[in-house]
Amino acid sequence: MAKELKDLTKRATDYSRWYNELVVKADLAESADVRGCMVIKPYGYAIWERMQQDLDARFKKTGVQNAYFPMLIPKSFLSKEADHVEGFAKECAVVTHYRLKADHENGGVVVDPEAKLEEELIIRPTSETTIWNTYRKWIHSWRDLPLCCNQWCNVMRWEMRTRLFLRTAEFLWQEGHTAHATREEAEERARQMLDVYADFAREVMAMPVIRGVKSETERFAGALDTYTIEAMMQDGKALQSGTSHFLGQNFGKAFNVQFINKENEPEFAWATSWGVSTRLMGALIMTHSDDNGLVLPPHLAPIQVVIIPISKGDKDGGALDERLQALTAELEAKGIRVKYDNADNKRPGFKFADYELKGVPVRLVMGARDLENGTVELMRRDTLEKTTLPLEGIADHVAALLEEIQTALYTKAENRLKERIYTCNDYEEFKSKVKDGGFFLCPWDGTPETEARIKEETQATIRCVPFGYSQEDLGCDMVSGKPATCRVIMARSY
Amino acid sequence: MAKELKDLTKRATDYSRWYNELVVKADLAESADVRGCMVIKPYGYAIWERMQQDLDARFKKTGVQNAYFPMLIPKSFLSKEADHVEGFAKECAVVTHYRLKADHENGGVVVDPEAKLEEELIIRPTSETTIWNTYRKWIHSWRDLPLCCNQWCNVMRWEMRTRLFLRTAEFLWQEGHTAHATREEAEERARQMLDVYADFAREVMAMPVIRGVKSETERFAGALDTYTIEAMMQDGKALQSGTSHFLGQNFGKAFNVQFINKENEPEFAWATSWGVSTRLMGALIMTHSDDNGLVLPPHLAPIQVVIIPISKGDKDGGALDERLQALTAELEAKGIRVKYDNADNKRPGFKFADYELKGVPVRLVMGARDLENGTVELMRRDTLEKTTLPLEGIADHVAALLEEIQTALYTKAENRLKERIYTCNDYEEFKSKVKDGGFFLCPWDGTPETEARIKEETQATIRCVPFGYSQEDLGCDMVSGKPATCRVIMARSY
Repeated sequence: MAKELKDLTKRATDYSRWYNELVVKADLAESADVRGCMVIKPYGYAIWERMQQDLDARFKKTGVQNAYFPMLIPKSFLSKEADHVEGFAKECAVVTHYRLKADHENGGVVVDPEAKLEEELIIRPTSETTIWNTYRKWIHSWRDLPLCCNQWCNVMRWEMRTRLFLRTAEFLWQEGHTAHATREEAEERARQMLDVYADFAREVMAMPVIRGVKSETERFAGALDTYTIEAMMQDGKALQSGTSHFLGQNFGKAFNVQFINKENEPEFAWATSWGVSTRLMGALIMTHSDDNGLVLPPHLAPIQVVIIPISKGDKDGGALDERLQALTAELEAKGIRVKYDNADNKRPGFKFADYELKGVPVRLVMGARDLENGTVELMRRDTLEKTTLPLEGIADHVAALLEEIQTALYTKAENRLKERIYTCNDYEEFKSKVKDGGFFLCPWDGTPETEARIKEETQATIRCVPFGYSQEDLGCDMVSGKPATCRVIMARSY
Repeated sequence: MAKELKDLTKRATDYSRWYNELVVKADLAESADVRGCMVIKPYGYAIWERMQQDLDARFKKTGVQNAYFPMLIPKSFLSKEADHVEGFAKECAVVTHYRLKADHENGGVVVDPEAKLEEELIIRPTSETTIWNTYRKWIHSWRDLPLCCNQWCNVMRWEMRTRLFLRTAEFLWQEGHTAHATREEAEERARQMLDVYADFAREVMAMPVIRGVKSETERFAGALDTYTIEAMMQDGKALQSGTSHFLGQNFGKAFNVQFINKENEPEFAWATSWGVSTRLMGALIMTHSDDNGLVLPPHLAPIQVVIIPISKGDKDGGALDERLQALTAELEAKGIRVKYDNADNKRPGFKFADYELKGVPVRLVMGARDLENGTVELMRRDTLEKTTLPLEGIADHVAALLEEIQTALYTKAENRLKERIYTCNDYEEFKSKVKDGGFFLCPWDGTPETEARIKEETQATIRCVPFGYSQEDLGCDMVSGKPATCRVIMARSY
């Protein structure tokens, strides 16, 4: 077995280390030489590209158009919305100069002090300010609304503690920004995009999520409401996987974006914004993978099927190779992403371990005896089950199996989620159980004080007020004993 | 006719102003409030997305994989390759701090002086340095080669004089970076990617280009050879539309990227890099458009066919609407991008002018009489010809016409290019003609001195030593009178 695989830490031993090692060993990403930044390697990027393509089509179906806004934001823009600047000022990368010059004393280059900017520029941590500054020029009448733009881009938040995919200084994301004539329409759009994210998570990532609304403390800086999808990782911790914000008229007012409404009166535009990022890669890895490496849902796998020949001598090689080339073509004709790995500089055992590590959903192996018998050995990556099957009809079988695996991964993750949502009304019980993971449905009095105390004492936070769970017979807050205002999901999180 | 269209400056009056106005009026892009940066508007971005998709597929067919490398580059990386830093240091945006703080005296926020970076970071002007620093970790043996990565991203070059799409401080591009075991393989890859660009320009943009190699003066900073595709705009000026660089072992040595070759000896890796950018949008606009606005080749047009009903009263409206909905569906079923514009808040005349301005290749108009007669009026945007055609079979006709238009645009541009390539051996003649545009095939003595003198006296530069043009019987340099070493294309350029 390949060295890389043997070396992978087991989840039970150290879940966090398992994750860090897996990201690197499976060739998804690695740390860059710039603090907190990452290099997304080709195999990792191929998965991200599939996510992008699928999400992009879903956005467009709802009437969203792509556009591109500048990466640099004048410092003064940030200050225009009070909560927003409060939320982002502490983690901004700041451009102060626009030129280097030769350093004649020490060699190399130094910043040219004469090329100092009059106003510093910020690398976007998010683009509400620059986009709403532009929307002022685009929006005049209710006829210009709704305006629904999205951009795929990089953003920068100077995080102190970073982890590949989960929290990096620079990351890739999409950010949608919409403007509307009415409050109702904006609220509806914010909810609609949350559903788009949840559907994508379920149908493509095979990842069940809880939808809900954030507490005031956990809201996006500048939002009136933040909707969230929360996924549960295998260790029972929550991972916020996408958010959609109803921004009210905050940015409309801050950037003076007014339109003439149907009654011929000027009114400030209503806003939403919503985003998912390369963080989804972390969610994907931690939802399905195991001690042998990645497990990828077929809808996202860059390679869905790998075919490996076992050829002992050149004599059989030709016929085997011919048969497997034909099988590759047959699978490709069905739209399946296949890799036929007949490289002769790696042993089959190495290949087996490598494709397991990389999470390829289906492996087909064929040797001389199989060729004689008209059979092929199939292994499912998710269950590691091996079966020997007739070659006849194998393409149809594989096509159906890929869908079966997609469904099986979702079901497995959903069962785990369901089993680990606990109703809890007792703080002592909560404290003892929460450190082992899981989502806790608890009554809350609605105060930030209680929320802060829970966080301090247990490291758990309110993930959301979940949709689709009863908000009746709330009883009392388990911490303060005051009447509860809602039932929330609490958990430790990434 | 719509006001926007009437206001468009004519090309003959002021070509440069015509371009600037058209980019804005056709909703392609606009200047941002950050100096030298642009906002790419949804209509412009939709064209860029089509370019990206097509190019991306072409790259992948040649074995290139996408990846992502950090946007910020440590200042010291730049200095490692001497020519490279010389070429880019003067136009770098520099990040010096990573935090803002509240300004209690004046309100707003200021840079926190305590959050100063130990080493300044540069926003990538191009990524050779950061990528070759990473390749050192990925390349050990000849088995790891070739390594062919590409990234789609934003880059920043602090240009002093900017123009939408043609030259902006921030722009979008792709940059491919490959590493090879041999010089021959690297040179071949650099040439291969130039051909990919030229094929894309011809087949998708309907834009003929001249392929060639740059003079030493015009080479990419750090390259041994820069290959280029040069297009001719309608005013006869050249627009460098894509470049592909053979970098030799310069970056391999600068970043110590060594591999063990087949003879078991350590060797520095050989490199190429190649890129096209949103500058292609400028090339597209200036190749085909006219005094009425944009003219888009069907392969890139976000809307290939617009259908406009002319409905005088509600009585006919229903039947007309029904027929046109059916026609829309029929065209869509053929994979044609159709917009059925039945909005009743704009008059047909306004719509006509608007879609002309936006370059939609085919317009179909139908009124009550057409409905009775079973006809439809078709207008080609490129020729502005109108014809009335039977509805029967119109979808097939339109599908064929779109290809015909694509070809016609290429032929028109190619004829213009051919007519304006002049053989010229006399400097006085050159000086008098070059200001009116055109490409001049001239013998050159190969010295930078002659090149510099021509540039100073005529503002024309050596665009390239063109491939496919005779390099025999060169005669003497038209400026110095010395024996010529090659025949080059000289032109004024964007």
